[in-house]
Amino acid sequence: CGAGSPPSSYYILTSSNQQTSQVQPLNNISVGVGPVLVPGHLDRSQIVTSTGKNSITIHEYQRWGDSFKTQVEETLAENISILLQTPKVAIYPWERAQRPEYQVYVTIRRFEGKTGMNVTLDAIWQIVRVDTDNSLLTRHFVETFPVAENNISSYVQTQSNALGTLSQEIAKGLHSVVAQ
Amino acid sequence: CGAGSPPSSYYILTSSNQQTSQVQPLNNISVGVGPVLVPGHLDRSQIVTSTGKNSITIHEYQRWGDSFKTQVEETLAENISILLQTPKVAIYPWERAQRPEYQVYVTIRRFEGKTGMNVTLDAIWQIVRVDTDNSLLTRHFVETFPVAENNISSYVQTQSNALGTLSQEIAKGLHSVVAQ
Amino acid sequence: CGAGSPPSSYYILTSSNQQTSQVQPLNNISVGVGPVLVPGHLDRSQIVTSTGKNSITIHEYQRWGDSFKTQVEETLAENISILLQTPKVAIYPWERAQRPEYQVYVTIRRFEGKTGMNVTLDAIWQIVRVDTDNSLLTRHFVETFPVAENNISSYVQTQSNALGTLSQEIAKGLHSVVAQ
Amino acid sequence: CGAGSPPSSYYILTSSNQQTSQVQPLNNISVGVGPVLVPGHLDRSQIVTSTGKNSITIHEYQRWGDSFKTQVEETLAENISILLQTPKVAIYPWERAQRPEYQVYVTIRRFEGKTGMNVTLDAIWQIVRVDTDNSLLTRHFVETFPVAENNISSYVQTQSNALGTLSQEIAKGLHSVVAQ
Amino acid sequence: CGAGSPPSSYYILTSSNQQTSQVQPLNNISVGVGPVLVPGHLDRSQIVTSTGKNSITIHEYQRWGDSFKTQVEETLAENISILLQTPKVAIYPWERAQRPEYQVYVTIRRFEGKTGMNVTLDAIWQIVRVDTDNSLLTRHFVETFPVAENNISSYVQTQSNALGTLSQEIAKGLHSVVAQ
Amino acid sequence: CGAGSPPSSYYILTSSNQQTSQVQPLNNISVGVGPVLVPGHLDRSQIVTSTGKNSITIHEYQRWGDSFKTQVEETLAENISILLQTPKVAIYPWERAQRPEYQVYVTIRRFEGKTGMNVTLDAIWQIVRVDTDNSLLTRHFVETFPVAENNISSYVQTQSNALGTLSQEIAKGLHSVVAQ
Amino acid sequence: CGAGSPPSSYYILTSSNQQTSQVQPLNNISVGVGPVLVPGHLDRSQIVTSTGKNSITIHEYQRWGDSFKTQVEETLAENISILLQTPKVAIYPWERAQRPEYQVYVTIRRFEGKTGMNVTLDAIWQIVRVDTDNSLLTRHFVETFPVAENNISSYVQTQSNALGTLSQEIAKGLHSVVAQ
Amino acid sequence: CGAGSPPSSYYILTSSNQQTSQVQPLNNISVGVGPVLVPGHLDRSQIVTSTGKNSITIHEYQRWGDSFKTQVEETLAENISILLQTPKVAIYPWERAQRPEYQVYVTIRRFEGKTGMNVTLDAIWQIVRVDTDNSLLTRHFVETFPVAENNISSYVQTQSNALGTLSQEIAKGLHSVVAQ
Repeated sequence: CGAGSPPSSYYILTSSNQQTSQVQPLNNISVGVGPVLVPGHLDRSQIVTSTGKNSITIHEYQRWGDSFKTQVEETLAENISILLQTPKVAIYPWERAQRPEYQVYVTIRRFEGKTGMNVTLDAIWQIVRVDTDNSLLTRHFVETFPVAENNISSYVQTQSNALGTLSQEIAKGLHSVVAQ
Repeated sequence: CGAGSPPSSYYILTSSNQQTSQVQPLNNISVGVGPVLVPGHLDRSQIVTSTGKNSITIHEYQRWGDSFKTQVEETLAENISILLQTPKVAIYPWERAQRPEYQVYVTIRRFEGKTGMNVTLDAIWQIVRVDTDNSLLTRHFVETFPVAENNISSYVQTQSNALGTLSQEIAKGLHSVVAQ
Repeated sequence: CGAGSPPSSYYILTSSNQQTSQVQPLNNISVGVGPVLVPGHLDRSQIVTSTGKNSITIHEYQRWGDSFKTQVEETLAENISILLQTPKVAIYPWERAQRPEYQVYVTIRRFEGKTGMNVTLDAIWQIVRVDTDNSLLTRHFVETFPVAENNISSYVQTQSNALGTLSQEIAKGLHSVVAQ
Repeated sequence: CGAGSPPSSYYILTSSNQQTSQVQPLNNISVGVGPVLVPGHLDRSQIVTSTGKNSITIHEYQRWGDSFKTQVEETLAENISILLQTPKVAIYPWERAQRPEYQVYVTIRRFEGKTGMNVTLDAIWQIVRVDTDNSLLTRHFVETFPVAENNISSYVQTQSNALGTLSQEIAKGLHSVVAQ
Repeated sequence: CGAGSPPSSYYILTSSNQQTSQVQPLNNISVGVGPVLVPGHLDRSQIVTSTGKNSITIHEYQRWGDSFKTQVEETLAENISILLQTPKVAIYPWERAQRPEYQVYVTIRRFEGKTGMNVTLDAIWQIVRVDTDNSLLTRHFVETFPVAENNISSYVQTQSNALGTLSQEIAKGLHSVVAQ
Repeated sequence: CGAGSPPSSYYILTSSNQQTSQVQPLNNISVGVGPVLVPGHLDRSQIVTSTGKNSITIHEYQRWGDSFKTQVEETLAENISILLQTPKVAIYPWERAQRPEYQVYVTIRRFEGKTGMNVTLDAIWQIVRVDTDNSLLTRHFVETFPVAENNISSYVQTQSNALGTLSQEIAKGLHSVVAQ
Repeated sequence: CGAGSPPSSYYILTSSNQQTSQVQPLNNISVGVGPVLVPGHLDRSQIVTSTGKNSITIHEYQRWGDSFKTQVEETLAENISILLQTPKVAIYPWERAQRPEYQVYVTIRRFEGKTGMNVTLDAIWQIVRVDTDNSLLTRHFVETFPVAENNISSYVQTQSNALGTLSQEIAKGLHSVVAQ
Repeated sequence: CGAGSPPSSYYILTSSNQQTSQVQPLNNISVGVGPVLVPGHLDRSQIVTSTGKNSITIHEYQRWGDSFKTQVEETLAENISILLQTPKVAIYPWERAQRPEYQVYVTIRRFEGKTGMNVTLDAIWQIVRVDTDNSLLTRHFVETFPVAENNISSYVQTQSNALGTLSQEIAKGLHSVVAQ
């Protein structure tokens, strides 16, 4: 079977783990993150960047630690837990005993860009009261983030920052629904 | 075995993200897009163009980011969300908590053409009231769009524009059913 | 694994999209086409022509865009929709909200011939009232169509025409049952 | 691996499509054909001939258009439809709306022979009233048919004729049960 | 993948199709044959002969038309049908409409031997009344049959004869239970 | 690929088919044999012998006609049927109509040894009344049998004899429970 | 498939089949052994030894007769049956008719070591009353056993001895619960 | 095909098996550990270390004895059993008879680092009362542990220590809920 394929390098999204003054703690709120939907063309283990208005590059040898969807779910959950300083943040699907009060649905529509240029995150997030299942808040988040260097590591870092900003919006949203 | 296959290039349909004055916002309407049916010979990961009246070319190394069907669903949903300025646009199948008021069924009969020539979009779309499941409006959309350049990128761009125009029709349709 | 196989060419059946004066519109009738049964030896992605009274040729490198059965279903549905000028024509199986008033069962017994010679279409079609499920009309259609040139493209074109003629019979049948 | 296998030639059983004076039309009878059982050693896509009293030849490169069982079912149904001049002949299993009045079970015990020699068809056929499910008539059919030439095409033609004769018996049987 | 394997020759068990005076017809009895159990080491598509008291030869290139079990079932059913001159003999499992009055269970314990020597058939057969499911008759059949020539064809012929004799016992058994 | 593997030789366990004076017939008792449990390391199609106190040899090219478990089940059933001179001995699982009065569970713990040395059979057998499902008799059988020659055929013969002796114990057990 | 892999040698755990004076018989107690849990890294067909505090060697060509888990279950059951001199010892899962009075759950946490050094067995065993399902006794067993020689056979022998000692503890435990 | 892959070395997490004075025994508490969730990119049989802020190395030839998730579950259960000196510690999912009073849910968010540098364990643990299913205590544990040497064995040892510390926290937590 010919020469072995070149070794892949693996990347993970990381939580921006510094609490920001912008968000007050809500340390006995319990939150469930997900289901998180990502666009079909991003939901794979290879990292995807855009090369033109309607064309993308699938990087065979630059891959996520597992799948992009899991990376996004885990990072959002970790951010919200840090921002609100509550350990009670679970990822969908959760055990009965871990049923949260509030559930955050996230649908990501765009989350790609170019290394050395920028990344756009375009997502819809919605907070639902779990026991009544009624939808309290639905918001559209769209922002473009500059990618410092022209390499995948910096690209992934930018995506982490983008999720950090989105998490702050969601955390503020949780504050507003709790306050009602 | 033998020489590796040439690298594929990957394309995505994109939303025409400029609100047009033609369509007023309906920002607390909730809409569900799908199921979207596409012709058998287009429902694959390769891009398809027509070569004669009844023959097509399946481009092995020019592929969609994932499948053509998912690309069409995601782009229609994004367009309608932008046109009506509502975040509450979900893709079929949706979670109970995201059940929309109106559901848009789309059956695409023809959606191909020739690079450097034109693309024809021939589709039936139908708006259904979700809680009563009765069908409010069924329309037939058929229009031909010129393809600027003789390459796949431009072909894909034209298909994006075609879906943009179809989305405007659907958005106007939603206005008419809401007005009843 | 040896030399790659020669590239296949792909064909699709096309609707004869000119309304004929023979058939009046029935533009708010709703029709469901299928299940459509095709003979075992034709239900494949390769195009089949007959070489003798009881022998056929299976063209490995001349193929349908997807399967012959789907091509026939989609083309019949499109023809009927154009002939009766109604968008409400669905292909079996349909969603609850798209349940038609009338359902057209089609069993194709013979639908092959020779390039440059002719093609014979031998089919049974039956119109059923969907809510009562009782059968209103059953007809046998058999007709031979000349194939202009000695190539597959012309063969496929002839098959398209044959389905066009069959569709007109079915459209007239729908008129007769509606009139009762 | 290595040289490709030689190309196969494909055969189909054909209906003897001339109404015979022997059988009167019964043109609004509805008949269901099947399940049709064929001997294990014939139920394959290769054509089988016998080489000795208890040995057979399986022709790797002479094959049925699909499987022998489907060919027999389709040809019997077509013959009966032509003989009784009724379009309402369905093959098991059928849709609810196509439920026939009479169902014909066929168990084929022997249906092989030698090219250039003869073919023996040995079968049990049984007519059952569908709504009451009780068995009206069970007959044993056994007859030997000469094979004109020493080639598979002629062998297949002989098998078609054999099924033609069996169909006439069944058609007469249907007349007798209807007359009761 | 090296040289192709040598071509296999295929064999079938055949019914001894001469009614014997020993058995009177029972021409409106309905009989179901099976389930027929065969020893694990015989239930394969290769023909098996014994080479020593406790060792067997599995003939890779001498095979049954399909599986040994199906061959035995079909041949027993055909024999009983011929002996009792009744078409109503079905093989397990049967359709509701073909439910027989009497069911014959057959468990074959030994059914092998040596070419040019002999074959021993050791089997238990049992007749059960189908509607009451109670067992009317259970017999043990064991007999050794000479194999004329030292080749597989003659070996298979001997096995056919053995099943012929067993069928006669079963036919007589059916007479005795019917007479009760 | 490469040289074919050497041809395997196949063995079967055989019933010691001489009634012994030790056991009286019980010719209308009905007995079910099984489920029979064999040790994990013996339950395979290769023949297993022991090479040391806690090591075994798995003979790749000396194999059972099918699996060791089936061979043991079939041989025990045949022995009991011969010893008690009753045809009504079925192997688990049986059809409803063949439900036996008594069911014999057998768990084999040790059943290996060395060619030219000896074989030890260590088994627990239990007789259960089928309709009440209560256990009537549980016995432990352990005995060592000399292997005449230093070859697999003789080893298999010894295993057959061992099962013969075990069958006699079980037959006597059946006498004792029937006598209660 | 270059050179064939070297032949594997296969090992089995054996019962220490000498009743010890330490344990009195309980010959009409019925005991069920299992489910037996073994650590993930041992539950395979290869034999595992430890090479450092937190590293192990998986011996590709030294394998258990089947899986380590089955070997442990069978050996524990055999030991208990010999120690208590009762045949009524079944392995989980058992047939209804073999339902035991007492069920022994065993969770093995550590069961490895070094050839020529020693093996440590660290296990939790628990006796449960089957009909009431309440837990009567839970004990922790941990002991280190010297491995005589520096080879796998001696290693396996030591593991057999370890299970022998554990079985004695369990047997004594059964005495104590029976006595209550 | 081609050269075999280099041999892998296998590692296991080990319990820090010295009771610490910090934790008092609770020797008749019954605890269930799990479900334990680990990050997607760690849940594999290869050992994972981090190479940069958001990139990891997957060590193809340094692997866990089985999967990382099972290693973590088994080690936590063993630690808690040793710390609280109770044998009654089961791993999820457990048998009915082993249902614990308290269940410990563990979600590990970060558990990687660099050889010769350090490892960070970031986890949420929660104690739930099993019969009432209500959550008694939820804590966030995050600590960084130095890795002594620049090799995988030392890295694995550090991860074992980290789990040891986490286990102590959980053990203290169990004391606090029991005390309520």
